[in-house]
Parts: sequence; structure tokens; C-alpha cells
Amino acid sequence: MNYTTITTEHITYFTSIVSELNIILKEEQKHPYGKDHTEDLHYMPACVITPTTTQQVSLVLAYCNIHLIPVTPRGAGTGLSGGALPIMGGVVLSLHKMNKIINIDEDNLQATLQPGVINYDLQQAVKAVGLFYPPDPASWGSCMMGGNVAHASGGPRAVKYGTTRDYILNLEIVLPNGDILNTGANTLKYSTGYNLTHLIIGSEGTLAVVTKIVVKLIPYNPKNVLMLVPFTSATDACKAVTSIFKAGIIPSACEFMERDALILVAQYDPLLHVVLTPDTQAHLLIELDGHHMDLLQQQAEQLVKTIQAHSPIDVLYADTEAQKELLWKARRKIGEAVKHQSAYKEEDTVVPRAAMPELLQGVKALGAKYGFKSVCYGHAGDGNLHVNILKDNLTDSQWTNDIPIAIRQLFELCKQLNGTISGEHGIGVVQKPYMDVMMTPTHFNIFAGIKRTFDPNNILNPGKII
Amino acid sequence: MNYTTITTEHITYFTSIVSELNIILKEEQKHPYGKDHTEDLHYMPACVITPTTTQQVSLVLAYCNIHLIPVTPRGAGTGLSGGALPIMGGVVLSLHKMNKIINIDEDNLQATLQPGVINYDLQQAVKAVGLFYPPDPASWGSCMMGGNVAHASGGPRAVKYGTTRDYILNLEIVLPNGDILNTGANTLKYSTGYNLTHLIIGSEGTLAVVTKIVVKLIPYNPKNVLMLVPFTSATDACKAVTSIFKAGIIPSACEFMERDALILVAQYDPLLHVVLTPDTQAHLLIELDGHHMDLLQQQAEQLVKTIQAHSPIDVLYADTEAQKELLWKARRKIGEAVKHQSAYKEEDTVVPRAAMPELLQGVKALGAKYGFKSVCYGHAGDGNLHVNILKDNLTDSQWTNDIPIAIRQLFELCKQLNGTISGEHGIGVVQKPYMDVMMTPTHFNIFAGIKRTFDPNNILNPGKII
Repeated sequence: MNYTTITTEHITYFTSIVSELNIILKEEQKHPYGKDHTEDLHYMPACVITPTTTQQVSLVLAYCNIHLIPVTPRGAGTGLSGGALPIMGGVVLSLHKMNKIINIDEDNLQATLQPGVINYDLQQAVKAVGLFYPPDPASWGSCMMGGNVAHASGGPRAVKYGTTRDYILNLEIVLPNGDILNTGANTLKYSTGYNLTHLIIGSEGTLAVVTKIVVKLIPYNPKNVLMLVPFTSATDACKAVTSIFKAGIIPSACEFMERDALILVAQYDPLLHVVLTPDTQAHLLIELDGHHMDLLQQQAEQLVKTIQAHSPIDVLYADTEAQKELLWKARRKIGEAVKHQSAYKEEDTVVPRAAMPELLQGVKALGAKYGFKSVCYGHAGDGNLHVNILKDNLTDSQWTNDIPIAIRQLFELCKQLNGTISGEHGIGVVQKPYMDVMMTPTHFNIFAGIKRTFDPNNILNPGKII
Repeated sequence: MNYTTITTEHITYFTSIVSELNIILKEEQKHPYGKDHTEDLHYMPACVITPTTTQQVSLVLAYCNIHLIPVTPRGAGTGLSGGALPIMGGVVLSLHKMNKIINIDEDNLQATLQPGVINYDLQQAVKAVGLFYPPDPASWGSCMMGGNVAHASGGPRAVKYGTTRDYILNLEIVLPNGDILNTGANTLKYSTGYNLTHLIIGSEGTLAVVTKIVVKLIPYNPKNVLMLVPFTSATDACKAVTSIFKAGIIPSACEFMERDALILVAQYDPLLHVVLTPDTQAHLLIELDGHHMDLLQQQAEQLVKTIQAHSPIDVLYADTEAQKELLWKARRKIGEAVKHQSAYKEEDTVVPRAAMPELLQGVKALGAKYGFKSVCYGHAGDGNLHVNILKDNLTDSQWTNDIPIAIRQLFELCKQLNGTISGEHGIGVVQKPYMDVMMTPTHFNIFAGIKRTFDPNNILNPGKII
């Protein structure tokens, strides 16, 4: 595909649509839009457009579609697979100014909002009226709902409440040709033709630009119990997770953290220091939520009894809100802490929950074989293990040549275990070279047919996923 | 599209693949495969094939694809939109012999099964090990899981637990060209390219044939409270539903039944007689489920207090298992009872929950305008109202000419209320003429592009949805 280089004529048109206030052309101002939270990649866009209305999105897209100008939609740029990187140049379409919660419908337990709304802001707004929007990516303080839709984002609570996918009722989208449409209806059930809502969710901005989101809300669970459980063996920690669910207990979070994850966090931010006994190799951070504290305590006791078989060192309850906040902050900061420590690659592996021990052992075996150090953590209840491979002492040649081979073998192991190569981060650009591990030529044909149907000129987030 | 008429040569080929035991050619034996539970429609297939393996499905499809022979996949034929009717003739591919539960994975809370497994059989099999598969269409005693996937089927429990869509992790499918592929992975999270699993769910057998299904299971809730609540006004009943959810209570079922629905059931089966006071116009059938009876009773009291504002006549608790069974049987038999009473058309309207009173009033206003009688019931908690329009005293001309106009106006009302024309029954053939109420030409273009991607020769369930 030969894309068009953006000229002053194009800029003049864009300016006529969105006004000068919503175009960024200066290098230093464009610079932040060339990266996201994925490793240290950077691609400079020709210009950044920050539309404020659906109509503007439509006009910009239709123009770019005719003129073959690549458009990379962008939320907060907190993605971890390079999905928001303008790898073909062209326009970055940043939706951050479309950031209104249009409506919270307390009768129907729904909210309607724009894609630039920050996840945490939505959480707080609905909590204020006793409602709950569960999906909570680690970056919830800055990530935007449009990006959450694009990646089918999860978070710790997904284990009990499901991912973004489970809370989207309807989307307003704009196609590359400028057509504006609703993908569904504002209903809890929908069996009216091919489900376009679910096709857009997780499509990483390659099919359409999301301009409005209708989410389902549920009643807020005001009470919770949080416990930190250290183990002398990471395998034991993972096995304990399976036992919890097998006992019929569904925690509202069940996070796994290797020893090194918490050490790196404490180095990164001494305020987030969590005491580690010398023999601790891994932790589970387990939360139970509900309406009745006495019931939660009963359930916690049952849980503790259940995991005794896996020899936890201790069970440390967070007694105060401050302790809870510290533990959650430490958990949420692991990604940043790892990034601060070393160049790294983060793999978003996911397998059926009971296969976690085998996955983890596989990671360490690959580390031994290829000489890399890994820091693993993630959503153990979902079998979703974030594997951070550190550059650390590896040579550039090892990093460039050997690590991709190791990653491929890691993904092959995921497939063997009936898992996949991304649970919640998406494919973007960094996992794209590995898609053939999961996908057959038939899959790629179908993906190409779907892409062609929505975006025949391949202007929307080109070079991603396929 | 010019389809090929099936000849003895084709039959010889099919026989070589599936053996004589799995081909039905005799008229009287084929006859049942020409209908489903939709009104009184009948279309005769040229032959019925009952494959026993994925490989057979693949070979039959690939052959039909090359020879342009229409193939209509079929489960139990309990559908209500004509999705399983072979309206273009050709082959009916009945999956009922692929009826094995391959595996119940208690470690991962998953089951793997073939499409011919009956919903209720799956429920019972997983209940035996303390697990729960929630989706429960009214026809659960006979409907098959492949059909449930095809229609994204719901049922009473969807209000708390979600529909079939929420429980499908992965599918094995066969494309018209014979290619066999998995749509996803056996994981709780999945962000690995376009979500083919969710695209197949609800696609009514028009894109691929489902040959294996991996479902998510949850722990079984052993306790429940069931109450029948009569109202003097259907509007009050609907308004009470909104109040229940607004109070933070999520019942495991919240069904609405008009007076006439229960009268028809009692006429149809006197054993299912439910006492009706003369002033009862509608009922809610409300179930709460959980692990602790004392908590459920507390919640029931809170619920009863909440609905007092809407003047229920009474709150009748089902005290015994026999009473519960009677009430559920009565509810599940309404469809059959209506069918027994009169020719009818069933519309599967769905709106945001709080819009139910307006929808119901709209139905009655249309009835007054066009002279039809309607019996309404359905999943009030989901805003999913089954509107049964009875032929009763209408002339054939009214039935043929006026009722489709009334249905169109009903669907336009659904759209106005942010709802849609099918919540759980699908579009099939009977709702197809009304799809333009919901869909723009852009939607139809996308649907056509998706269809073309999977089924370029249009052999798979042709004439359905679009």
C-alpha cells in the first residue's frame, strides 16, 4: 500500500474541520503521540488531530480514506502492545478531548460516555450513585475507555466480574469512509444479526473509531477483605489458586507476584515496600468482596483452609484502608518498576488457570536456556501471567536474535496448554510477528476479509494485528 | 444464486462419507426436518445428513461448497425465528448425533462438548460435580447447545448470569470450504485478533458449522427463594422490576406474565393451573439464588419492601419444591400453550428494562389499532418481552396484510426506546423483512462482507438474517 505523505493542503483541510486548536504540528508537541507504554518504541506522526465531535471524526476519516492517509486512533497511550503507535506515519487521531460521561442511567444501570473518559473517572462517577463498573486495568488512573474497548482490557477484578467485553452494550463507531453507526442496542440481550459490538471490541482501532460507548453497570459491593499470602514456591502459589476456585470460592481478585516483582517495586518507590521473609518466593494477593462482612470473613476462613494444602508461609490480612491501598499500589506499579529497572519485553500470556504452574516452569526453563531473567506477575485467577523478560545483562545480539526465539517458544507452550498469546494487552505491533503461532492461514484469510469489509483502503491503524 | 439440485450422484458421494446410517431420504422421515418451532412453516430438504464426526462435517461442506448445494445446519429444531428451516432446499445437516460431553474440567471450571448435547443434559452433568451452566432457554429439555450458540440464547437466568455468549470460551468450527479451526483459546481472557468466537455466536449457522464447544462453568448456587407476585396493572408490574434492580437486588430470574398467559397455560394443561384473583392483570415470577438461605430471606424481604410502592396484590412464596416446579413449568409452557390456542406470531422484543412499561403500552395500542389480541410474557429483568400476536378472530387478509405493518411499527417503537427486534430468538427468516428497521445500508454492507468472507458461495443457511 502506497500511503500519501501529508502536505500543507491536507493540513489546511483538517484545520477547516477541527480548527487550529485541535491540530498539533510542532515536533516537540507531537513527540508524546509517537509512543505508548510499550518498551521504548517511537514513531513520529505527521500530525496529531484531537477531534471534539463524532462529526469531526467522520470528516477526518472520510478525507484520509479518499487520500490514502494512515490514521492511528489513540486514547491515553497506555497500551502495552504498540497498538497506538503510528508506525506508518500519517495522522494520530487522539480522542482524549471527547471525554464526557454523557449520562448515568440509574433506572437501567447503564452509562453512556465518550471514548476519552478515563477508566477511574468512570468508576468514581458511578460509585457516587452506588453503582459499579468493574474492569480495572493497572493503568486505570490514566487509561481511557476507548482504549479499553480496543483491547478488551481486563484487570484484577476480571476474575470475578469479567473484562471490558462483558460490560459493553452498544458502541457508536465511525468507519474509514466516514459512515457513523451503532453496533447494537442499549439492551442486555442482543440476537439481531452478526454481533458488530463484539467484533469491534478487541479490534485495536483497525476496523473503526469508537466515538460513544454504552456500558452496563452493576450494584456496588461496599465490603471487601484483602489478604497477602506468601509462599516458598511459586508453583505452590499457582496450585493454591486452582484449589480456591475448585472449592467454589470466586475472589474479586487473585493476583500472583513473584518475589522479584515486589523487590523491584520497593526499589522503584520505597513507600511501596512490602516486607518479604527470606524464604518467600511468590505471593498471592487475594480479595473477596460482597455486601456482608461476616459472610466475607467466613469465606476468607474457608479460603485459608483450602490453601493450607499448598503450604503458605503466612496469611497477612490488610487491616486498614491504608494497608489495602499500599498493597494495591504495589501491585499496580510492578509494570512501571520493571520498566524502570531494565529494557524489557512484556508478554501477556494466558492459559487455563490450572496450567499456570506448567506455564511458569516453562518460562523459567526458557530463561535458563536463553540466559534471560524474568519477572512474572499477573492475574492468576484468570491464568493470565505477565512475563517480563529483562534485557539486564544480555548482549544486544542476544536481545535481538535469541529473545524472539524464546518468546516464540513461550507462545508455543501457551498454545499447547490451550491458552493464547494475549489475554488483555492485544497484538498491536509487538506481538504481530508471533500471530502465526496461534493462527492458521485460514484465520488470516478471515481476518483479512473482515479488515477489507470495514477498511478496504487499509488506512485505519495499518500494520497492526495482521 | 443458482443452487444445484441434488442428484443420486451427490447422494452416492454423501453416503460414501457418512454411510447409509446417516442419510435420510424418505419423505416421511425427512418431514420433521422441514420445520422448527416457528409458527407453522415447513420447507422440505432434499436430504438430511446426520454426521457423527467433525471430519464428516468438513467433507460434506467442502463438497456442497464446490457443487453449490445449500446446507442448513440444525440442532433440535426448537428455534423461533425459522433459522433451521431449509428454505432453499438442499441438505439439512443435523448435528444431533454429535451429542457427547467430551470433558468436564473441574480444575478449570470448563466443559468441552459437541453441538448436539441437550442444554438440560449439560446442566445436570455439571451439577453432579457441583458446577453450574446458567443459560436456560424455555426449551432447555430439548434444545441443543449448537443451537444455543447459533442464537446467543438466553433464558430466565440470563438476568443475573448472562446469556450463552457469556459462557462460550472457544469453538471448533468448520467453514463452507471444509477448513476446520478453533475460534479462540480455552481461556477466560482473550485479546488475540478479531474475536471470531463472538462473531460465530449469534450468527445462526450462516458463517460456519460449530462442531465443538468449550463452555465456562461457575460454582452451583444451591439455595433459592421463588415468589409469584400478582399486580392489578401490567404497567405496575414492569415498574416494580426497575425498582428491584435500582435497589441493588439482582434476582436470578425476574419473569413477567400477563394474565392471559397463565390462563392459556391452565387451559393447555390443567395440571399447570395457577390461582388468579379476578383483579390480577399480570404476575412477576421472581427468584433469588445464593448459598445462604438466611441471606436470601433478608434479600427477599428487602425486595418485597421495594416493590410495595407499585401496589402488588400479594406476594406468594413457593414453599415446596413441587410448588416451584409447578410455577416454572407453567412459565416454560406459555409458548406451547399460545401455539395450541391459535395461529400466532411471536416477536422477541427487547428494550432497556425501564422502558418495558412504554413497550407494553405500545403493544396494546397497536393491538387496538389493528384489532389483534396479544399475549405478552418474558424476561422482564432483561427488558426482553415476548409479544405473541394471536390470529384468533382476524381475517386472513388482516393477518397477511395488516399484521406485518403492525409488527414493523412495534419494532420501530423498540428502536425508539433504544432496544432491538430480537433479544434471544435471532432473525432467521421470519424477522428478516424487518431488519431494515434496525440496520442502515452500511450495516447490511458489513454483514454482506462478513458473510462473503466466511461463505463466498452462500451455501450455508442461505436466506437467513440478510
